Order: sequence, then C-alpha cells, then structure tokens
Amino acid sequence: MKLYNYFRSSASFRVRIALQLKGLAYEYIPVHIAKGEHRQPGYAAISPELLVPTLEIDGQRLGQSMAIIEYLDETHPEPALLPKDALGRARVRALAQTVACEIHPLNNLRVLKYLVRDMGVSDDAKNKWYQHWVRTGLEAFERELALLPASTYCYGQTPTLADCCLVPQIFNGQRFKVSFDGLPRTMAAFDACMALDAFQKAQPSACPDNEP
Amino acid sequence: MKLYNYFRSSASFRVRIALQLKGLAYEYIPVHIAKGEHRQPGYAAISPELLVPTLEIDGQRLGQSMAIIEYLDETHPEPALLPKDALGRARVRALAQTVACEIHPLNNLRVLKYLVRDMGVSDDAKNKWYQHWVRTGLEAFERELALLPASTYCYGQTPTLADCCLVPQIFNGQRFKVSFDGLPRTMAAFDACMALDAFQKAQPSACPDNEP
Repeated sequence: MKLYNYFRSSASFRVRIALQLKGLAYEYIPVHIAKGEHRQPGYAAISPELLVPTLEIDGQRLGQSMAIIEYLDETHPEPALLPKDALGRARVRALAQTVACEIHPLNNLRVLKYLVRDMGVSDDAKNKWYQHWVRTGLEAFERELALLPASTYCYGQTPTLADCCLVPQIFNGQRFKVSFDGLPRTMAAFDACMALDAFQKAQPSACPDNEP
Repeated sequence: MKLYNYFRSSASFRVRIALQLKGLAYEYIPVHIAKGEHRQPGYAAISPELLVPTLEIDGQRLGQSMAIIEYLDETHPEPALLPKDALGRARVRALAQTVACEIHPLNNLRVLKYLVRDMGVSDDAKNKWYQHWVRTGLEAFERELALLPASTYCYGQTPTLADCCLVPQIFNGQRFKVSFDGLPRTMAAFDACMALDAFQKAQPSACPDNEP
C-alpha cells in the first residue's frame, strides 16, 4: 500500500490517521505541494485530480480523503471508524463534512494562493478570510456536537471519521493563529485524539518530508 | 418527512434528486437564503449549522447533503444510489466529493457575498473566481470519469450519489455562464440525468419557492 501525500496537507493527514488507527502499514511517498509537484506530469499520471492524497491499494488508486477512509473502513472493518447504525453514521459523516465541505476548501493552499496572486488581496485580508471561515465552521461544528450525547471523541467513545477530519483542521488553524475559545466539546475531542499514539504518529512533524 | 431547503441551493437540490429517485414523498419547507432566513432564530433552532438542507426524518434532523443521501440510501435501499462493491462506492464517493469538497464550497452564495462585501473585490474579479474554480473542478471531474469504464451516468447504468452532486453544479455553472466545452463524459452524464423525471421534478424551476 502506498500513500502519496504531503506532510502539511490536511486531507493527507486525515488518511494517515485512519491508516494508523487501523494499524495498516504503508509506503510514504511525498508530493511537494508547495513546490507544485502535484501539477507535474509524473503525479498527473497518478492523480486525475492533481490533488493529494492518493492511496494505492488492491491494485487501484483512490482519491478524496473521506472516500478513501470509508473504503478502508469497509475493507478493514476493525477498529470501526463509523458507527454501526444509520443514524450514527449520518451524524459522523455530517461532522466530517462540516470540516471537509464547509471549512477546509476555503483555506487550503491553492485557494489562499489564488486570493493573493490572482486577486491581489493583501496578506491581512487573506488572513482575515482564513480566520473567518475557520471560526464560522468550527462554531457550527461545536453546535452540532452540543446536540449529541456526551462523548470522549467527536461521536462516542472511540475515534471516528469525524475525528480524522477535525484534528488536521485544528492543526491548520493553529498555524494561522485562529482562536479556539468557546469550543469546549470540539477541543476536548481534539485533546482526546492527541492523547492517542495513532494521532501522534500521523501528525505533520512525524512525517518524513516534514519541514520544521 | 420534511425538507428545509431553498430552490437555488445546490446542496438542497442534491437531496431533492435523491428523494425523487427513491420515490419518497416529503413536505417542502422553503428557507429563503438570499434574505438570510437561515440565520434567524427560527431556523437556528432547526439547523445547528445554519445551512440548508435539513431533512427531518424518523424523528431526527439531519444536515449535510451527502450524509443525508447516504442515510436515505441505507434506510431506503432501492433504487441504490451507491454501488454494491467497496471499490465502486469509493469511486462514486470520490466523484461526489470532487463536486462537494472542491467546487461547490468556493462558489456558494455566502462565499461570493464575502468576496464582494467583506473583501471589496469587483464583480468582475468575483466572476473570474467563480469560473476558475468551477472549470478547474469540472476538468478534474472529467479526468476522473475518463479513467472509468463507459457508462450512461457518472458511474454505471443507473444514477448515483455522484449524479446527485453533479447536476446541481452544472445548473449553478449555467447561471454564471461557465463554458462546458471539452467535458464530454461529464455533460453526457448530465444530459442522461436530465432525461429522467426525477431530475426534472427536483430542479429549481419545479420548486414551490422558485423565483424566475
């Protein structure tokens, strides 16, 4: 199994967490996004989307982090990253999508670059944009959690797809100095995750291509 | 069953398609996004994310369109909106997420409003932004399709979650006069969908809150 990824990519980080939680060994293949390696012909032959991560598994190449994680969960069921009941799965998927569809797409590298290079907005305006969408999204995430029963992680007593998405988003927010005040359930789930070996081993600073 | 939605919301449209494909009747409850009704206390009590759609079903309120459609597929399995095999599901989910995580979040109403109102970018720059992300995303979508076996819809001979996401994105692109040149598989899937009653009945112009 090979994972094409980048230490700082949140979407790559999500998949690294899932692989660690399931105890699956993989070959780490770095793709240097900041240097544009994902747009070179070599990687274009691997990823039609020109995005990381790509997981090479069972003779196939898979893209899109949430789809990859669901595939891993279906083909390697233990420990489960989604609840057994349909309602639980809907809750976990909705939490994951609050990060992956409402927050992350607005603050990934290519979007921030477009704002500055193509639109000519100032660094200050770019940072405000970043903080606006991360805060707005995490406040929504917190309100979703507040409607759910008490739990150690985002949903229930074991990490799920929702935690795989939340943790990289918090790391990302930390880099841009977002305030996490007033997000008690969210940050408790984050802390619970970071107490686990799997999350520690998946984090950017543990990656072979890490740049301090 | 109640669906809180807005005729022009792509995410609402996705769920309307799924409900029509499965032949499930529902009460249509309009939330006027352009007038900000989703941020009023009444709707805030219904949707912690302050987003449409919300599906009220089985005594629960569900958010996030892809999570809702997977819930419907699990609780009302026929006709299936996801393939039976894990690899097929990964392909369909990845296609859906290419729209829902890479394209739509960058061009929904709140983001376009932020660009103009909070960032002060011109209408022209806003339209370029819109067209840039829709084209970039649809070209990636087309390359994903090109790697798959020939099919009537996005994946295989019946509509899936991927088609539920693609069709509203094309409608959205049409409003902003995006060029769909050079996207043969994508547009063939779109045309095949629009030949079906379910997609016709779900479209914005068929909604009770439609504004021509």
